[in-house]
Amino acid sequence: MRSDLDHLMGERNIDVLVIEGPDGMGSANPAFNYFVKGEHLVGLVVKKRGEPAILIHSPWEQVQAEKTGMVLVSRDRWSIREIEQDFPDPFDATVEHRRRMLADLGVSGRVGLYGTVPIGPFFALWMALAQKIPGLELVAEPQKDVISQARLTKSSDEIELMRDVGRRTCVVVQAVVDFIAAGRAEGDTVVDAHGTPITIGAVKAFMRRELAANNLEDPSGTIFAQGRDAGLPHATGDEAAQLKLGQAIVFDIFPRQAGGGYFHDMTRTFAIGHASADLQELYDTVKGSFEHVLGELEAGGPTIAFQKLTCQYFEARGHETIATKYPIEEGYIHSLGHGIGLEVHENIRFPSTIDSGDVIVPGCVFTLEPGLYYPSRNMGVRLEDTVYCRPDGSIESLTPFPMELVIPLRG
Amino acid sequence: MRSDLDHLMGERNIDVLVIEGPDGMGSANPAFNYFVKGEHLVGLVVKKRGEPAILIHSPWEQVQAEKTGMVLVSRDRWSIREIEQDFPDPFDATVEHRRRMLADLGVSGRVGLYGTVPIGPFFALWMALAQKIPGLELVAEPQKDVISQARLTKSSDEIELMRDVGRRTCVVVQAVVDFIAAGRAEGDTVVDAHGTPITIGAVKAFMRRELAANNLEDPSGTIFAQGRDAGLPHATGDEAAQLKLGQAIVFDIFPRQAGGGYFHDMTRTFAIGHASADLQELYDTVKGSFEHVLGELEAGGPTIAFQKLTCQYFEARGHETIATKYPIEEGYIHSLGHGIGLEVHENIRFPSTIDSGDVIVPGCVFTLEPGLYYPSRNMGVRLEDTVYCRPDGSIESLTPFPMELVIPLRG
Repeated sequence: MRSDLDHLMGERNIDVLVIEGPDGMGSANPAFNYFVKGEHLVGLVVKKRGEPAILIHSPWEQVQAEKTGMVLVSRDRWSIREIEQDFPDPFDATVEHRRRMLADLGVSGRVGLYGTVPIGPFFALWMALAQKIPGLELVAEPQKDVISQARLTKSSDEIELMRDVGRRTCVVVQAVVDFIAAGRAEGDTVVDAHGTPITIGAVKAFMRRELAANNLEDPSGTIFAQGRDAGLPHATGDEAAQLKLGQAIVFDIFPRQAGGGYFHDMTRTFAIGHASADLQELYDTVKGSFEHVLGELEAGGPTIAFQKLTCQYFEARGHETIATKYPIEEGYIHSLGHGIGLEVHENIRFPSTIDSGDVIVPGCVFTLEPGLYYPSRNMGVRLEDTVYCRPDGSIESLTPFPMELVIPLRG
Repeated sequence: MRSDLDHLMGERNIDVLVIEGPDGMGSANPAFNYFVKGEHLVGLVVKKRGEPAILIHSPWEQVQAEKTGMVLVSRDRWSIREIEQDFPDPFDATVEHRRRMLADLGVSGRVGLYGTVPIGPFFALWMALAQKIPGLELVAEPQKDVISQARLTKSSDEIELMRDVGRRTCVVVQAVVDFIAAGRAEGDTVVDAHGTPITIGAVKAFMRRELAANNLEDPSGTIFAQGRDAGLPHATGDEAAQLKLGQAIVFDIFPRQAGGGYFHDMTRTFAIGHASADLQELYDTVKGSFEHVLGELEAGGPTIAFQKLTCQYFEARGHETIATKYPIEEGYIHSLGHGIGLEVHENIRFPSTIDSGDVIVPGCVFTLEPGLYYPSRNMGVRLEDTVYCRPDGSIESLTPFPMELVIPLRG
């Protein structure tokens, strides 16, 4: 939680956090959004240990800046116009502007760098600053950095936002199911009321409208993968393909609150009209693994234990897994889940090999997503909820949506 | 254009471009999207001078990788599983994996770094690689880097995509105008068919659905600013505020093709039902400046000349401008436009002070957006098209939408 930041900074002997918020990043800048709470603005956050975070913002974005509730400083406090008189090269002027800002704000010592940036200009900027500011020691945390660790545990306010996104994501998935169910069969193809075959592209276009209507941002990369593609975990689906009866369809959707908010991530596997006994069996096995592991999850448990448990469950039922074969293309081929919040993938990993040391802690939110993949049999099944470890250690799914394989056609 | 890359690399003595494509960046990673053409995947592009670009991708994303048309190498060619045996720390393993990859691909010499990344982990990664790879010299271009310069001029394929996004953006703006026009007046408030006041939030919700229906991504930060907010260039509008008759409304919308494609940027200023003589005069002045400058634009012209021309136009009509006063809060307070493409703001600046040396060149696309702002009078006007300098040097607007101040109510 945000309130852990000072403690985490102390543990790592970091004096100041500097979080970059350059133009054009939007929701791809979770560290910055964590401070500005999704307000759309360009700026820089400076947080010294034991002090409130300061937002340096454009005077044009005063309205958005005020909504963050942060301590505000206008970047015009350091006149770029004046600096440009002495530093005609725009890059030199940028460095000098930043140098004056950091000097006036007393930024020195061990300074941790965070935020999403274009790599070239910010490498150049910070290398130049490191030469110009005496006593500045840059800290580039490669993994599990201070801000990610704070974000690992969600406050009750954040959980309310995540529950809400979960509910609305389920509304969208239900609408998509209803859209498909309104079709009818013509041979092995699903057609709409006009007799036109329904394509995956049409399903996705419908989904995008429903996401917008529910104030969710369309996640590029939504998976709606049918048949063989369902057996390839990251195939997103062929937009031109028509919906076919009885085929496995993996529908993996991970929208976020519009404007840089929290993500939800869920997957259901469907078959339209009917399912073969083979596919139903595969489905039941994955559903069984999901329920088994969900029941075993507990606060304090190392994530690797649940990854292993899932592998054991599948292996006992005759499926190869990533625990015993690598690279692996069929069977259970990936890890069990990932942390989720302001990023769709964030801290907490369920490592498939070497232990990352991650543990399920009260307040964390992560996905649980076992799956079995058989592209050679033109099928794959994955089931996924976003789940929350409550402060009391109990586990709550944030994905109120049933797991049913077959979508009966009503049209 | 892409075909300029080798020439640009030669000019700057850069041997290899490395473009990072980490998880979660989406359309915030224009340099990477320039190569993978908006395909949703995680990876790394390596381009040596005189050779085609190579995409190192996840084997799970083979389908998307093939769609890029690039030379492909699976990242599993270097076994992370094997590396983890010798490098149990995940960061050390990442560095070693990358080191082997770069060694095998022959990446050495002057290596330019590009792409959008979380700053900490990638600082750490490249600092570690610089120590481990003999003869590696990192080039962090602070501005107008090789890829941005290639992107400055658009190919005919890119222009077709940009024309198409422009047309669809205008369809959305027209739908919003029609949505408002269907309302009726109740006192000074605009109400819908049920008599409910229409809020800015309702307008934006309608706009989001129309964007989705037109396969455009919702740009966080769309401006729909009324009254005093219209006088603050970056105020996005108070969602709770009701639409009022006769108030200046600045509507600035900059969506992109869904999935990391090209942006369009346009602004219209409206008044619902009627406009005061004051507001109409301000509107006519901004429209006059727009038409005047559009007529003067020409290939080879330095951008600063058109910024100055705009200031002169406004000053001759009694408005203060950024050319003569800084900081400035009322009058013409910003620059004339910006390059646009895979970023909403990219190369080509119209500098308000020191000359950036930018010149309008055939193939470039930029916005033209003069405006006048008077928050003290509760009004502001901005008008903006996205314009293209054709190969023959003539100028074409990509924004087929009229400039009319008043939206008459039909309801």
